[in-house]
Amino acid sequence: MSDPKPPQTTPQTTPMQHALAQAEAARARGEVPVGAVITDAKGLVIAANGNRIIEHADPTAHAEMLVIREATKVLKNERLVDCNLYVTLEPCPMCAGAISLARIKRLYYGAADEKAGGAEHGVRLFSHPSCHHRPEIYGGIDETACATILREFFSAKR
Amino acid sequence: MSDPKPPQTTPQTTPMQHALAQAEAARARGEVPVGAVITDAKGLVIAANGNRIIEHADPTAHAEMLVIREATKVLKNERLVDCNLYVTLEPCPMCAGAISLARIKRLYYGAADEKAGGAEHGVRLFSHPSCHHRPEIYGGIDETACATILREFFSAKR
Repeated sequence: MSDPKPPQTTPQTTPMQHALAQAEAARARGEVPVGAVITDAKGLVIAANGNRIIEHADPTAHAEMLVIREATKVLKNERLVDCNLYVTLEPCPMCAGAISLARIKRLYYGAADEKAGGAEHGVRLFSHPSCHHRPEIYGGIDETACATILREFFSAKR
Repeated sequence: MSDPKPPQTTPQTTPMQHALAQAEAARARGEVPVGAVITDAKGLVIAANGNRIIEHADPTAHAEMLVIREATKVLKNERLVDCNLYVTLEPCPMCAGAISLARIKRLYYGAADEKAGGAEHGVRLFSHPSCHHRPEIYGGIDETACATILREFFSAKR
């Protein structure tokens, strides 16, 4: 008799892969394909969303803003002190400001945004002396996949 | 017989007075007293709100963000191209970013915010070459009233 089968393992999904799936879903809705997730102190995903600017006719409906608002609802707390945010594209100044206000612990992003980014490009908000909370920042996570989905989206638009 | 009475005149309220009333309402809710309104191309107020950070447990629930989202819903348009925003306090970087994304035409603010402002202090978002849309900016509107309500609020907290 053979040994009993090992317990079925669930394929592991990293938070950035989860954010990429949200970017894919955004693309399917005709939105600029950017996705984001927030994980809690245990590393569990507590909020996931993609851009909904067109859907909501709302220029502030960036993936990061939506997950920050979702996560504060989940935790019933306006401060996400032990939470990490994963986003497929470097946040713009608005989102960088929101990340700072929300006291996000670590920011992981995929593709850099040299034109419209506000974290490590443009105003470099977190490096400015007026910034009251600076997350740890890790760029270039799954960079190729995160950049490719954006490049393909804009190529198809032209 | 005397002449008929002239038509009853309605007391005029300026948009900034309207924003100040929203700041007062925010104070009554225990929020940092900041209020904002958005006027449309005809100068009519189409959105008015105050901070709701505590109420919504949401660090992004600044008065400016709320009225931008309200105005886009009213106009069913993500771009507020012919709209003006009046806010009792200089916007922070998050709100300045949202104002730029929403293509607000003119920004009128009351009190300057030397510590946390992002329009004419701090990162001075609109002056940065990476900023894609810069509104016309008029600071110091009803400055004394706008600053007093904030000063009184923080004095009472101490």
